Amino acid sequence: MRTVEPIRWTSEGVVILDQTKLPGEVIYHTYTDYRDVARAIKSMVIRGAPAIGVAAAMGLALGVKSSKATGVEGLRAEFVAMCEMLAQTRPTAVDLFWAIDRFKRRFEELSREDSREGGVDRIRAGLVAEAQTVHQERREADERIGRYGAELLPKSCRVMTQCNAGALATGGIGTALGVIRMAVEGGYRIEVLVPETRPYLQGARLTAWELNQDRIPLTLITDNMVGHFLKTGGVGAVVVGADRIARNGDTANKIGTYGIAVIAKENKVPFYVAAPLSTLDLSLPTGEQIPIEERSEEEVTHLRGMRISPDVHAAHPAFDVTPARFITAIITERGVARAPYEESLKKMTEAQ
Amino acid sequence: MRTVEPIRWTSEGVVILDQTKLPGEVIYHTYTDYRDVARAIKSMVIRGAPAIGVAAAMGLALGVKSSKATGVEGLRAEFVAMCEMLAQTRPTAVDLFWAIDRFKRRFEELSREDSREGGVDRIRAGLVAEAQTVHQERREADERIGRYGAELLPKSCRVMTQCNAGALATGGIGTALGVIRMAVEGGYRIEVLVPETRPYLQGARLTAWELNQDRIPLTLITDNMVGHFLKTGGVGAVVVGADRIARNGDTANKIGTYGIAVIAKENKVPFYVAAPLSTLDLSLPTGEQIPIEERSEEEVTHLRGMRISPDVHAAHPAFDVTPARFITAIITERGVARAPYEESLKKMTEAQ
Repeated sequence: MRTVEPIRWTSEGVVILDQTKLPGEVIYHTYTDYRDVARAIKSMVIRGAPAIGVAAAMGLALGVKSSKATGVEGLRAEFVAMCEMLAQTRPTAVDLFWAIDRFKRRFEELSREDSREGGVDRIRAGLVAEAQTVHQERREADERIGRYGAELLPKSCRVMTQCNAGALATGGIGTALGVIRMAVEGGYRIEVLVPETRPYLQGARLTAWELNQDRIPLTLITDNMVGHFLKTGGVGAVVVGADRIARNGDTANKIGTYGIAVIAKENKVPFYVAAPLSTLDLSLPTGEQIPIEERSEEEVTHLRGMRISPDVHAAHPAFDVTPARFITAIITERGVARAPYEESLKKMTEAQ
Repeated sequence: MRTVEPIRWTSEGVVILDQTKLPGEVIYHTYTDYRDVARAIKSMVIRGAPAIGVAAAMGLALGVKSSKATGVEGLRAEFVAMCEMLAQTRPTAVDLFWAIDRFKRRFEELSREDSREGGVDRIRAGLVAEAQTVHQERREADERIGRYGAELLPKSCRVMTQCNAGALATGGIGTALGVIRMAVEGGYRIEVLVPETRPYLQGARLTAWELNQDRIPLTLITDNMVGHFLKTGGVGAVVVGADRIARNGDTANKIGTYGIAVIAKENKVPFYVAAPLSTLDLSLPTGEQIPIEERSEEEVTHLRGMRISPDVHAAHPAFDVTPARFITAIITERGVARAPYEESLKKMTEAQ
């Protein structure tokens, strides 16, 4: 199965598929300035927590590569500014901060390794390589998540997802959609129920498009149909991605996920979170500490530029938090974690 | 408080506000042919179970009034055809069938009252009066529902609703919004949380517009935000309308209502259904027997004529069923019914 590539490192620059234009137009931008990569993250040209991590890594590599600095100190000062700018793009996705932290550590390693003249070039080459490593690790993590997750699904069923936790969201085969892809490759008969995911329509625009490209059967529904289908629609499992997972397993994901989890539990439908360990934030004891991004009201009162409501006040929290007690299991690249998550997730990170 | 009038009987014909054009355009159509009234119901120019009942009544009155029949038998044959056509417009809203049944009974009464020549005119005048009586009863029922419901709300809170159970949906002050209007008139400090209600956007287009006209504060949200706000948004109560209520209290209402009810219960937020007794269908023991209208896929894959997804399969159940155990109380014009509903609802209908 050949899945779409939302981001790619090339010698000309970072090539990013513009997800704000899908499915109507398939447009790739080539960015040569890290500031444009930051803007692409902020404006959701690229989105999805793992893919944001890859984009941040490539943005930093691009910034360092194109820097005119001749000494390590000058380069470090520029690098710190790049990190700060990228850190301000999306507050909820922890992979962003994970990638920035990893690059900060790698920068220091590379600058220690070689304090001779020429150290600047060594750092440049090292960080460009690191960005590609991050991307490659992401791909491998997705495949492992997919394999672990597929084992949890019934051989023939409907699977509900939310938003887009697919190739477009990770740069690999996807987390939630990676589980579905691996199941389909393994001969399972799967039909995917795709909530459209207002206000940005990642379900209708991205997940429907991505599954359609891979000829995986799907039914598109509006977000308020999830309850009806969980009650009457023969759904065998819900599989979603994650933007940040607290130590106790509480999970921030696209707005609507919490509601799906509550209704799934009421109807005894297993609810799975599929996410790489980079999505874990062990510094947060519970989900209550996860910052929730508020986006513009206009994205609610308008749809693709067209006003759909009178001129009224709207709210736009982009994520919600699903308490761990609604989560049947968390599928990671190191295996399947079950409650109590504080323990099982800790073990997995230690296994790394 | 002077609320909008979605339907009005005039000497020129039935005047109906085109709800498919709101909030962008405020257009009234004057229908002189009952077939146009049937088409207006089917295409949702007028919608909302109680308003559909009023429209069906006025449609029948219009049809009988403009009939060229000179004898009672001829008029009856035409009347039966009118009833059949109207019965095929919307399958879930029971008020439609309630109105048709009431008109059939009234037709027979009027034809018995007077078998002399001139009976046709007597029937015509009688059914025109009956349509106005139905409308007037609707207005009075809304006011009583509003008063009973307001007593259940906290004096200062956020109230979540769903779809539009307002003046536009009933021809009075609304059922769910009638409760809110009566509370606001009584000095309560209410802010209404309005889910946009895809695919037709009755929340964003109609409820937001209607509340805005009356200067009642509101916050518009997308349908997948209901969980987040029920968990964290200080919601004091949910109040929704109903399209059909079974004998045991199971309630069919706009798609999404079931999910809201489940999440409300999880968060200990009272969940109220506000509906006139005409919405009761005592012939159905439970909600499982309520027919659920399937509307076109295009209403999901498109938004106001603009394609928003690739060319994929979509589902469009227009209603869902909320089991009685999630309903804190059902507010009717005869008072507030509580579980067990089989008993309490029966008592209320007997009180009529």
